[in-house]
Amino acid sequence: MKAPFIYHGQDHRWVKVSGTTLTVHVVTEQSFQPDALYVRCEPDNEERLIPMDTSGNTGRLKIWKATFPLNQDKATTVYCFKAVTTEGQWWLDGTGIFRRMPGQEKLFRYNSEYQPPEWVKHQIFYQIFPDRFANGNPDVSVQSGEYCLFGDQKPTVAKDWGAPVSEHGKDGACEFFGGDIQGICEKLDYLQSLGVSTLYLNPIFSAPSNHKYDTTDYLNIDPHLGTNEKFAELVENLHTRGMKIVLDAVFNHTSLDHPWFDRFSTRNDSQGAWKNTKSPYRDYYQFDGDSDNYVGWNGIHTLPKLNFLNQEVRSYFYDSDASVIKHWLREPYKIDGWRFDVIHMLGEGEGATNNAHYVQAFRQSAKAENPQCYVLGEHFFEATQWLQGDQEDGAMNYYGFAHPVRAFFANLDIAFAPCRIEADEFASWLMEAMAKIPWRNQLSQLNQLDSHDTMRFLSMVNGDEATFRSALMLLFCWAGVPCIYYGTEVALEGGHDPDNRRCFPWERLESRQDMVSFIKTLTALRSQTPALQSGSVQWLYAQGDVFTFVRCLDNERVICAINRGDNPEAITLPIWKTGLNQGHFSFLMEGESIDAVNGELVLNLPGKTGKILIQSL
Amino acid sequence: MKAPFIYHGQDHRWVKVSGTTLTVHVVTEQSFQPDALYVRCEPDNEERLIPMDTSGNTGRLKIWKATFPLNQDKATTVYCFKAVTTEGQWWLDGTGIFRRMPGQEKLFRYNSEYQPPEWVKHQIFYQIFPDRFANGNPDVSVQSGEYCLFGDQKPTVAKDWGAPVSEHGKDGACEFFGGDIQGICEKLDYLQSLGVSTLYLNPIFSAPSNHKYDTTDYLNIDPHLGTNEKFAELVENLHTRGMKIVLDAVFNHTSLDHPWFDRFSTRNDSQGAWKNTKSPYRDYYQFDGDSDNYVGWNGIHTLPKLNFLNQEVRSYFYDSDASVIKHWLREPYKIDGWRFDVIHMLGEGEGATNNAHYVQAFRQSAKAENPQCYVLGEHFFEATQWLQGDQEDGAMNYYGFAHPVRAFFANLDIAFAPCRIEADEFASWLMEAMAKIPWRNQLSQLNQLDSHDTMRFLSMVNGDEATFRSALMLLFCWAGVPCIYYGTEVALEGGHDPDNRRCFPWERLESRQDMVSFIKTLTALRSQTPALQSGSVQWLYAQGDVFTFVRCLDNERVICAINRGDNPEAITLPIWKTGLNQGHFSFLMEGESIDAVNGELVLNLPGKTGKILIQSL
Repeated sequence: MKAPFIYHGQDHRWVKVSGTTLTVHVVTEQSFQPDALYVRCEPDNEERLIPMDTSGNTGRLKIWKATFPLNQDKATTVYCFKAVTTEGQWWLDGTGIFRRMPGQEKLFRYNSEYQPPEWVKHQIFYQIFPDRFANGNPDVSVQSGEYCLFGDQKPTVAKDWGAPVSEHGKDGACEFFGGDIQGICEKLDYLQSLGVSTLYLNPIFSAPSNHKYDTTDYLNIDPHLGTNEKFAELVENLHTRGMKIVLDAVFNHTSLDHPWFDRFSTRNDSQGAWKNTKSPYRDYYQFDGDSDNYVGWNGIHTLPKLNFLNQEVRSYFYDSDASVIKHWLREPYKIDGWRFDVIHMLGEGEGATNNAHYVQAFRQSAKAENPQCYVLGEHFFEATQWLQGDQEDGAMNYYGFAHPVRAFFANLDIAFAPCRIEADEFASWLMEAMAKIPWRNQLSQLNQLDSHDTMRFLSMVNGDEATFRSALMLLFCWAGVPCIYYGTEVALEGGHDPDNRRCFPWERLESRQDMVSFIKTLTALRSQTPALQSGSVQWLYAQGDVFTFVRCLDNERVICAINRGDNPEAITLPIWKTGLNQGHFSFLMEGESIDAVNGELVLNLPGKTGKILIQSL
Repeated sequence: MKAPFIYHGQDHRWVKVSGTTLTVHVVTEQSFQPDALYVRCEPDNEERLIPMDTSGNTGRLKIWKATFPLNQDKATTVYCFKAVTTEGQWWLDGTGIFRRMPGQEKLFRYNSEYQPPEWVKHQIFYQIFPDRFANGNPDVSVQSGEYCLFGDQKPTVAKDWGAPVSEHGKDGACEFFGGDIQGICEKLDYLQSLGVSTLYLNPIFSAPSNHKYDTTDYLNIDPHLGTNEKFAELVENLHTRGMKIVLDAVFNHTSLDHPWFDRFSTRNDSQGAWKNTKSPYRDYYQFDGDSDNYVGWNGIHTLPKLNFLNQEVRSYFYDSDASVIKHWLREPYKIDGWRFDVIHMLGEGEGATNNAHYVQAFRQSAKAENPQCYVLGEHFFEATQWLQGDQEDGAMNYYGFAHPVRAFFANLDIAFAPCRIEADEFASWLMEAMAKIPWRNQLSQLNQLDSHDTMRFLSMVNGDEATFRSALMLLFCWAGVPCIYYGTEVALEGGHDPDNRRCFPWERLESRQDMVSFIKTLTALRSQTPALQSGSVQWLYAQGDVFTFVRCLDNERVICAINRGDNPEAITLPIWKTGLNQGHFSFLMEGESIDAVNGELVLNLPGKTGKILIQSL
């Protein structure tokens, strides 16, 4: 017998909260007549099977409904569905349909206590590496030899806009191209016209390197990027446009040049902790007694790790009214979110001891100042434990998006080892990552094809723009917020760090009008389509080189269909599973349309093609 | 290309801890030449890929080895294996081999901080429901009408040994057959001859019902079961024999008749909390203000739930030197473990708020008195979160054993709904449950076919003794400690509670000598075979009606092969995957033996048959 469940989504069509109860819906085929159909919940950690009633039909589907109490003893209520017939039982969990009770990690989960800000899911993010985006004020640009990194070891190098970046491991951190905040200000019209709504900036606080993950002053914008006033002006300008901004919080470690550490000071009156056991900041770091040995991030001694057991450190970053977290969330800046750098590695000692405590504390500090602050964590790998609601709103979604996308389209993993997966494995990877976190956190994940920490996606697929476009279509159709790394819209190439941080080639706005226009079409679709921002994901096909899913909300249906292979494929999509028997679908970017007949949509996908189909009502 | 990994076990052949490092081994086929082979770990929550070296060959296998640091910031170190070739990558986790990075829950896990007592895994448990096991002292047996349950509502009923138990919901709790501690004392020779090494007794503290989950006095043995002195004598007798004993800890709720509550008191000077807002024990329970409403376990008002926010309650049960937990672990009793009743539901308020805190505190209290105390939790469903090391040593393994076994052999789930799974689904269920917890906790799980809370297994399979024997073979060969529910050894039948609590039919020791002898063979095998107590599990076959796995340790190999179907099956087992090319295997209980040839063992399994094969060295 075939699996009787068709689908359960987690958007407002399927899950309604009312006071202390949750009402959930699930659909089966209309002809399915089980002996019993339940939603299974665990109000006090013990199983409760709540019988579901049929509540209507739509197309070939029968809708079932039940109401059950939200858990009172914990923030997250978990549930799944069970159907019983004489031929056995079927269970529906967040990853699919099975013949037995699912494991806890796969249960649907609704967090009634902690939810990400509503605004996040409506955004289109754009990540800017400030030194490489636009130079608006050459007067403040770093000059060659203006200062040195690491004492006198690495003098700054000023380069012409667009000149090649240095090779990996050479002058990566000390060469400057002059991008600054004024440059960003001047490009806001452009960014807005591109359809971008939120900026995520790599670090902008004072720091000697160009990447600025080596902070020397958390309360001031780096003078080569601009001033605090200039930054306040940028934020105000963004807010006036209805746009938002998220900054990078590098709280795990500081620069060697931070006055607290002052590694290369030649002054006699240095208060820094280096070789100074009497320093008031000695305990801000983790020295091994009176020795010169200290803990560096990831074993890297140029990034001394902060000691969060020290109450002054806690106060400085999060545990006071004047804390860094609150400071920038407040007038005159009022940023809209924090992206916490290497947050999973932050803790006491060398490792991440008590990590959850600090992430929760950072969240509480931020939300106390602004409940609408977006708390975003950086995680190169699985972030499930940080995304249960009480820690982060969303993560840079490498595990649940960038990794599988890279594997499927580029046959590579994050370490650039060969990785070959078929569409079914791709779908199951995406769904597993989603299933393990509450739905609203799923919608608040920050999805990226690439970032300042990875090779650019276009280079990863060896410049194959057809594949690049398919991946971008997926980015804009998938659940979670799309984030474009600057330059993507003009097909900027780039290998490993620092080559992935090339200057924005502004001349390409003309020459790559095709790509700009492609991105604009995607941003417009995403902004105008609630189904893509908040709708459930339903898979229609996933086999070999081809996958197809549909995002649905209310009466909206948007289908994303991708063929990564060289050969054309014709697939028949069971659109009846979304409750539709007849219907008209238009192709995005193409003047065509097709009709669903008898609940099926027959789709021809040429080789290396993505298609987006929008239901026309 | 076929999957290159063959196997990784977690016993001492595969995993060696030395100081702060872990050395792990994994095997591939000898011909496999990957571009890279790593163990993946997360010392500070960030991925580390540690290259593995080949360290030898055995049979057709190549052995790989690597050493990496134990996590310092948390008790549990997680890891898995990654092989890279030009054709892609393969990962090995606790559940199998996949083409992509596994989810966190499936990683191998080694807990360096919390480990169950060594003795547990060597045991063969025997569960006794005291009123029904043996009457050794008729003088203390409950008489008909001796007292009433629930005030004057349910008078006690004394029944003759072996008379039918009442129907479900009738006199289940108030009928008595006279089993007692003296009866157990008198049967110790028998139990020892059966091969049993540890007794688990259902509650024996003072309580009005026959099941005694409604305690009235936590510090005294119920007078109808014996005296504290008699119990001390039982434990001493057990310990003299090298046997052990685990008691039932019912700390979630009390009886209505507990003096703290005293629901039916007619005395004027009652100090009980019922209708007495001035009672010194009022806050021991959870009354709704001055009203008569209070929280009952699972909504059952006859079992008022204790209030663990009250410090006197905490002190009484765990948080003092005189606490109940410590009291019975101490002279003159010195019990060897606690089985915590409905432990997942214990907490503050109606639900299980702060549950983990209390389970950890119970553990700490017990281990402080006796570090070798076995901390066993009752969980009808998945217990993963309680079994990470810092809470329980083991659980009554319904989720990871009784449920799948019932589904596979009896086509039923725990709620008696039809449940049909094939051998591959059965194997994956068992492995998923195991994979999620540290290896030593896996070995300390308490596996049962049935208990006082379920229909007896023999009745579940409608008296089919062939199937019953196959399931028993599995029980004794599987990882985790086997626990026999009293009467299993004489094929005692029994339906739903209370029919599953029939009197032990002692006359059957003669008439069912066949079953007794069958069980003795299994207990002897288990006791004499370290591979069954501590060896890794390796699957050799799992398809349709047939499954086969092997338990290995050092040079021991024990194969368990089961065919649940009616038809004979001939299977070829790839015994070479255990490192063996030639070898001689004897059948347990049969005078035959077979040889492995060229790494394969050809096995004929008649319908409804289990076979256990032991390698002869």
